[in-house]
Order: sequence, then C-alpha cells, then structure tokens
Amino acid sequence: MSQLMQNPAHPAAAPPDLYAPIVRDLEEVERVLAQTLRSRYHQITAVVDHVGQYRGKRLRPALLLLTARACGLVTTAHHVLAAVVEMIHTATLVHDDVLDGAAVRRHVATVNAEWGNQTSILLGDYLFTHAFHLSATLGDPRACRIIGESTNRVCEGELCQGLERGNLELAEDAYFDMIDGKTAELIACCCRLGALFSDAEPEVVEGLTRYGRLLGLAFQIADDLLDLEGEERTTGKSLGTDLDQLKLTLPLIRLLKQSPQAASTRLRQIMCSPGNHKREALLPLLREGGALDYARRRAEEFANLAQAELECLPRSVCRTILENLAERAVHRTS
Amino acid sequence: MSQLMQNPAHPAAAPPDLYAPIVRDLEEVERVLAQTLRSRYHQITAVVDHVGQYRGKRLRPALLLLTARACGLVTTAHHVLAAVVEMIHTATLVHDDVLDGAAVRRHVATVNAEWGNQTSILLGDYLFTHAFHLSATLGDPRACRIIGESTNRVCEGELCQGLERGNLELAEDAYFDMIDGKTAELIACCCRLGALFSDAEPEVVEGLTRYGRLLGLAFQIADDLLDLEGEERTTGKSLGTDLDQLKLTLPLIRLLKQSPQAASTRLRQIMCSPGNHKREALLPLLREGGALDYARRRAEEFANLAQAELECLPRSVCRTILENLAERAVHRTS
Repeated sequence: MSQLMQNPAHPAAAPPDLYAPIVRDLEEVERVLAQTLRSRYHQITAVVDHVGQYRGKRLRPALLLLTARACGLVTTAHHVLAAVVEMIHTATLVHDDVLDGAAVRRHVATVNAEWGNQTSILLGDYLFTHAFHLSATLGDPRACRIIGESTNRVCEGELCQGLERGNLELAEDAYFDMIDGKTAELIACCCRLGALFSDAEPEVVEGLTRYGRLLGLAFQIADDLLDLEGEERTTGKSLGTDLDQLKLTLPLIRLLKQSPQAASTRLRQIMCSPGNHKREALLPLLREGGALDYARRRAEEFANLAQAELECLPRSVCRTILENLAERAVHRTS
Repeated sequence: MSQLMQNPAHPAAAPPDLYAPIVRDLEEVERVLAQTLRSRYHQITAVVDHVGQYRGKRLRPALLLLTARACGLVTTAHHVLAAVVEMIHTATLVHDDVLDGAAVRRHVATVNAEWGNQTSILLGDYLFTHAFHLSATLGDPRACRIIGESTNRVCEGELCQGLERGNLELAEDAYFDMIDGKTAELIACCCRLGALFSDAEPEVVEGLTRYGRLLGLAFQIADDLLDLEGEERTTGKSLGTDLDQLKLTLPLIRLLKQSPQAASTRLRQIMCSPGNHKREALLPLLREGGALDYARRRAEEFANLAQAELECLPRSVCRTILENLAERAVHRTS
C-alpha cells in the first residue's frame, strides 16, 4: 500500500499519520481475505497461500476504501466488499495466467507453472464463487447485483478479447470497448461500491464511478505499454504475451492504421510469423512510428479526465491520494 | 424432459396432461436462459448457442421446479432460479471438458474442441458470473447466499478432486466427501431453493435438501460407473477419462482395498502405466472382484434413502416423479 500513497510531487503534503486509518482498513481487508479463504482441505490451503504471495498493489480494495473514506464513513461492509473485489481480481489473474501460459506473476511462480492448468482453472472458479458467497453474506441485494453485473461485464470483455485474437483489423473503438469491460468495469465498480456504501449523494456515486472507469482505461493502456516496452525484472511478470497471443493493443492498432500499405503488410507478416520474438522486432517500429507516444497520450487524457471527476468531493487526504493515483497509473514501471 | 417424466413401472400412473404445467415451467426456464445469455457481441452469441446444443437432461432445473410444485406454488423466482442452477451446471461442464481434454459432450463437439481451451475457460467464467448476476436480480438475499455457498462447495469439491489426482491411497470417506461437494451439493441446493421459495415448512425444506443430497450421491456413483462400463455411443461423451486422469472412483477404491497385496500392486502398475487403455485392462478385474456390484449397491442405498425423505410431502404427481428420479438415477445408460 505504501507504494500507492507515495506522493513524489508533494512529499510533505500529508504527514504519514494521516494515512494510518487507510492502512488499518487495508489490514482489516487482509484479515477478511485470510479468514474467508481458509479451507478444511490442507491441499487447497497450500494453493491459496501460494496465491497470497502474489501480493500486488491491492489497487482495487484501496480504491474502494479511499472513495469510501473520501465520502464519509468506512464500515465493516466496505472491508468485506474490498476483500470481494480483490478475490475477483485474483480469480481473473489466475485464469489469465493459464490463458497466457505465463510462468511468473509478481516475481512468484504462477499457479499453472507450479500445479498445472487444471488446478489453476478450478482455483479461479473457487475464488470467483468465494467472492460471490462473501458478498451475499452482507444481506444487501445491491452488493450482489452490482458485483454480479460488473464481474459479468469483465468476463464478457475477456471473452471478446480472446475471440478477437488474431484479428489484425481490430478497430480502436472495439479495443476501448474491450478494455472498458475487462479492466475499467471492475475499477469503476470499486469506486461505486465505496461511495454507495458510504451513503454518498447519487451525483457523487456517479462521479466516482466515472472516475474509476477513466482511471481503469488509463491503467490498462499503461499496462499494454508495459507489455511492449517494460522490463521483466521490474514488472515481475512475463512480457510480450499480448503479441505472442496475437492480441492487438492500442499502439499496434495505431501503427497498423497509420502505416502505408507496404509497411502495414510487413507488420502483419511479423505478427503472424512463428516464434516469440515479435516484441524485439516490433518495438523499434512502434517507437519510430510514434505509436507508443500516441498510446501514452491517450492514457494521459483519460487520467486527466479521471482527476477532473474528483471535483465532486470535498478536499481531503483521500481525495489527494485518488488524484495522485490517476497520475501514477500512467507513469508506472510495474 | 420427457425422459425424466417417463414412468416405466407404471406407464398409466399419470396421464400426460398432468405433466403439462411442468413442461410449461421448463419452457419458461429456456426462455429465461436464452434472454439472459444474449450478448451484444455476435462472437459470444455463437459460442453460447453452441453450448445450447448440449441440451442435457435439465435435471437441476427440473428438480427445482418439481420440488417447488410438490410443495405448493411455482413463481417467477423459481423460473429464474432454475435458469441460474442450469447456468452454473453448464459452467462446470465447460470447465470440466477442458480439465478432461474431452472432445465430445452430449453427442456435440465440446467448446474446447471447437474454440480451444482459452475460450472455454472464459466462457465458463462468463456463465458463472451470469448466474450470479441473474440470482441477484431477484433482490432476495437468500438466493444469493444459498447459491454462493453451494457453488463454492462445488468448486471446493472439484479442486480437491483435482489435487487428489494420482493419489492411489484415496479412502472411501474422502471420495464421498468429494462427490458430496462436486455433485450432490448443487442438486441439494436445487431442491432447497424449490421448497424454500414455495414457502414450505422448515422441516420440508430440510427433508428435500437431504433428498437432493442423497440423489446427487447416487447419481454421481452411477456416473462414475458409466465412465467405466458405459458405451460412448449411448452416453454421448468421452469415457474412461477418470482413469486416464488418475481420478479414483468408488469401484477402484473398493478393488484396491479388497485386493491382496500382489493384485493390488498389479492394479497400481496398470493405473500408472502410460497410454489410455486402462479402462479395457481394468474393467474385467473390477467386474470379477465385485467392485462394480459394490458401487451399484451403494448407489441403490443412497437412492432408497432419498426416496424415504419424500415422505415429508403429500402424495402428488410431482412427488411420484421425484421418487422415480431416484430410481432412474441409478439405472441409467446415459
């Protein structure tokens, strides 16, 4: 969490003790996660514990708790919902790693690398259903409905991306629609739940939902850029997988569209050639053609729009962190 | 459905028009399924339509509706819940086919055979989340809680079975515990929901839940027997997969336990040998050793206990069908 709360632009803007409540919230979420995922089968516990080592940025629970605190009170329901969204996110990661055949995630061997695809698929299902069960324990139909709807949209986006693999004609609009589903939807859902369960006014709930969606779009474009130009050492995961899987992302869509006929044909040949050295071959072309800069600019635009949505909130430490998050989503190396 | 309602012992027991309300209920469930699974992405619709061709016995929705009608009134909530349980069941089938590398399901090519494992994994997730979203639309926290809890237990059972693959020391108790999770739990859940949403008395809800669980156990043992001695032509799916995947089922657990040291060692050698002709090699041994008969007897015991639980219901056409179902679960060829 400390990562998320760094404020390099204004190191003295908020003394560390102001962060204490948010740190305590996140610790509470970890407790809910650990308690919920305990299984009476020791074999299952071993796999769940392994996934616990991924310990990523906890972006989704943090967003849910930060929006809650920015709107008012943080309740037990928020801690439960934050655990729910993290479980859903982890389920999608575990299945993504099977789809991508990835060996490493956040510097740790993936479940599929360690236990095989079968266990990974079932573990993902186990986490999904745990998340739904946990959200149902709140007894508030809004939680189940919002989470059910968002998660479904996430899967639709992922499924669509999978079915569009190898389609080198993919348009920018279709790409944005897909990442809106597979990434932005769940992030928007976190912000919506945070605000809604703090009894925020409807316009604040809607404003923060839009903030989450725009942040999610910026975040995914930055992620796609990292897959192209990042370093495995820093990101802690296998890179270049989008190209290997013939998944088109914004820079490549741009380059294919902007290139003259001959260059475009050459690009398609590289994409469709066997082997997994597409990243090395395409990176200079993407750089020289300005496609990486274009994608970065689009991500910045979304981040700026996200920041503007925060105007609906009174000034607070949490609002400042949410503003910084939008900036950091674009300029990150991991 | 006509399959489920045949009553070979008493062909004249219930004239066909008595079945009309149940047939209408099931048609309504098909409408809910079709409407819910419509996607704005035509590529997704194509895969969903393909899965629609599986059209199995619709055992789970039928149980939910039959228990509902046996207790009292069938409402819109029952139709929605019946669609939910069928979606969950289909999601587990789609993922099972990936795990088993199965090529055929109900005489139709599996999704993994047609679109690959990636699409299958994501389609399963899509169906799971659709089911949860649909159950949340009822606005009744009981539906989400019961379905969340049951589905989680199903995944736990499946995950456990996967992690126990290759364990030739698996005990009978552990096997029963696993099939209680992976199969009996969801069938029990159907009966529970049917009764609960018909405002049945608590002891009837509990009795029918036990009926479902016992029926599920009988059903799974019969399924495991079919995997060993069934015919692919009749069952419409790949057989022998349990052995190929080193998943121990009741007949083999029994044979391993009952065999003298030397025979048991020979069995283990056959199990661990490469190739996929284990079924042919083991079937005569399972037959001669009485292991198939033993498993069939256990399935019959569960079916009889299931029938006894129906005493909590007044006599009706639906109760008769539920009684027959317990019998048919054991003596089936597909």
